Amino acid sequence: MAIITLTTDFGTQDWFVGTMKGVILGIDPKAVIVDLTHEIPPGNIRAGAFALAAAFRYFPQGTVHLGVVDPGVGSARRAVAVRTRDYFFVAPDNGILSWALAQQEVFAIRALENKRYFLPAISHTFHGRDVFAPAAAHLSRGLPLGRLGPAIEDIIERKWPEPGLSGRGLQGEVIYVDRFGNAITNMEAAAIAKLPGKGVAVFRGRQRLCCVRKFYQAVPPGQAVAVLGSSGFLEIAVNAGRAAEKLKLRVGTRVRLVGSAKP
Amino acid sequence: MAIITLTTDFGTQDWFVGTMKGVILGIDPKAVIVDLTHEIPPGNIRAGAFALAAAFRYFPQGTVHLGVVDPGVGSARRAVAVRTRDYFFVAPDNGILSWALAQQEVFAIRALENKRYFLPAISHTFHGRDVFAPAAAHLSRGLPLGRLGPAIEDIIERKWPEPGLSGRGLQGEVIYVDRFGNAITNMEAAAIAKLPGKGVAVFRGRQRLCCVRKFYQAVPPGQAVAVLGSSGFLEIAVNAGRAAEKLKLRVGTRVRLVGSAKP
Amino acid sequence: MAIITLTTDFGTQDWFVGTMKGVILGIDPKAVIVDLTHEIPPGNIRAGAFALAAAFRYFPQGTVHLGVVDPGVGSARRAVAVRTRDYFFVAPDNGILSWALAQQEVFAIRALENKRYFLPAISHTFHGRDVFAPAAAHLSRGLPLGRLGPAIEDIIERKWPEPGLSGRGLQGEVIYVDRFGNAITNMEAAAIAKLPGKGVAVFRGRQRLCCVRKFYQAVPPGQAVAVLGSSGFLEIAVNAGRAAEKLKLRVGTRVRLVGSAKP
Repeated sequence: MAIITLTTDFGTQDWFVGTMKGVILGIDPKAVIVDLTHEIPPGNIRAGAFALAAAFRYFPQGTVHLGVVDPGVGSARRAVAVRTRDYFFVAPDNGILSWALAQQEVFAIRALENKRYFLPAISHTFHGRDVFAPAAAHLSRGLPLGRLGPAIEDIIERKWPEPGLSGRGLQGEVIYVDRFGNAITNMEAAAIAKLPGKGVAVFRGRQRLCCVRKFYQAVPPGQAVAVLGSSGFLEIAVNAGRAAEKLKLRVGTRVRLVGSAKP
Repeated sequence: MAIITLTTDFGTQDWFVGTMKGVILGIDPKAVIVDLTHEIPPGNIRAGAFALAAAFRYFPQGTVHLGVVDPGVGSARRAVAVRTRDYFFVAPDNGILSWALAQQEVFAIRALENKRYFLPAISHTFHGRDVFAPAAAHLSRGLPLGRLGPAIEDIIERKWPEPGLSGRGLQGEVIYVDRFGNAITNMEAAAIAKLPGKGVAVFRGRQRLCCVRKFYQAVPPGQAVAVLGSSGFLEIAVNAGRAAEKLKLRVGTRVRLVGSAKP
Repeated sequence: MAIITLTTDFGTQDWFVGTMKGVILGIDPKAVIVDLTHEIPPGNIRAGAFALAAAFRYFPQGTVHLGVVDPGVGSARRAVAVRTRDYFFVAPDNGILSWALAQQEVFAIRALENKRYFLPAISHTFHGRDVFAPAAAHLSRGLPLGRLGPAIEDIIERKWPEPGLSGRGLQGEVIYVDRFGNAITNMEAAAIAKLPGKGVAVFRGRQRLCCVRKFYQAVPPGQAVAVLGSSGFLEIAVNAGRAAEKLKLRVGTRVRLVGSAKP
């Protein structure tokens, strides 16, 4: 028995996620299923990769993390299961696991090819239900990873966009916009620590967007502020407002953190 | 102990579904509750019937499927529980179960009339919580179906719109539009098999909508394609796009599958 | 082991709620987690308070109700855990618990200050995950409330807007608009009982909005009607329609219930 988390772009208006859960519980009746989110924008592998990377470590050891953002379903793309030091991951081989795996020691990778662990009838459009859910449930029940298919070494990697340090500060980009309109950047604590002095303000080009504070309410309502957010990344917020709309920030917008000291 | 699935039009913005779960767990603390969906459009019995029919069979035997799309709540409409070969179903008697029951051998039908298995106080507007959730939880705990109320024979049936075969092909209609904008038709594998040759294209009147392929990515991004979808029905999709908007398809739109051979 | 309910404004598009569940299950693997709703409008403490008050009593004794609508996160606002006759409540000290606690005998209140029961690293922006989820999980596991921090007496109270009785009827207001567009008022059965005769119509100023009936379908489709709703409050609905839009009702709109007899 283990926890199985689900991260998909299937939404919740249809029965898709429900049938994945039915399949899982048919294989491992004791599995505890937790929805991370099903509202990854359709086909947006990058958003799925970030959600998994931000969340996976808050679960107990042994958790099986299932990530299904799968625009290539039915084509020749591979399906994989990965064992790391603390977790299992199951997903299409399209880079969705890259940012999570970069934070974990990877012990083994297998291609999902053993049809014995698929549903008996495999659709061409819904491997989440027919291939990935069964694999996750079998792992949750204790099936050795190796039974799922042959070992592979090369999985598709999506490179993490490292922020760049220069005399003008730490140059990064918005990597995710959350439900509150907060623009989460790719600048994490370790990268920020390399900045001379401490981060004091965020710019877009020459435009100063906001100061850096510890929490949202450190500035008056309606004012922008950058804080080290809960997932460990600098994020740009507006106290009691939506930064993404107010400052016209979206995924890919380049922003620069400027420090208190000259390098 | 059993699985109880929930299919409702209650949405997730309020506490309605949560209180149904509280009631269920108060009666059967070991019930495993799975949301199929709560985003059936308000009062849309047809969409609820299709969701249940598409999903029920992916759950283990003994699962209790609870479907509450109940525009007639508080009026004289009956409430029913049904035992089929593999499952239990609990719902208002308004046809929401018809398309699922058509696929299962029905063993027994009871009207929910025994107030001993209701909540003590019954509202006039929320039988999902006060009548249906308790019935499902009692069944999950093992209560014999017959205790819930008297046997009935006639429940309201919603006829499945059978596609019609003619010299011009298989005439069907769109029966559901999913989160991805895919237009699911009423043409399932068995009906398609009767078409001379194999299905090669889908038309609306004289307008050719798309070809038939095995999976979405068999056509270039942005192009329409019909595939046999994961629920067993022909569906019209756009690779990396939304067919419903692009082709102006909605529930009820008539479409025709044309085969490779003259009949 | 207990049930833990979650009521938040975190939405479901991100991984926030998922990580709260991971933290809970890491502390109490047997906790049964139920989502009340995560769609409280961001920062809307009043809506959170109403959702909790409407739902809490449908759960078994011993349930831990966690409410996190926390616009002051990271600032000096306190965090509290409350034991009542039947339940535990965990929340920021901002009034979100007021309307639920008003219905329960309160036995003890503690400030969440014992860092031993926090996550090891506390963010400045997500105490739902770092402070509240751990506290709820420890309570669910059986930790005595007193271990969480010092006893406090004064928590922030949000006053319930009592409806006022006069010769012109019972004057109340809309307190919540639900997913169906029903406008739930602050007039509950006990207050309505004080009206001479029985309630027969609802007015806004001099405008008659609707009659009072037992259920929605007691009026023709499209027509407005007031019913005693499932949470025990008079609500204004439109049969098969949306009252909030049709009658321009929103939270705070003043409405008056007029009785059948002169006082």
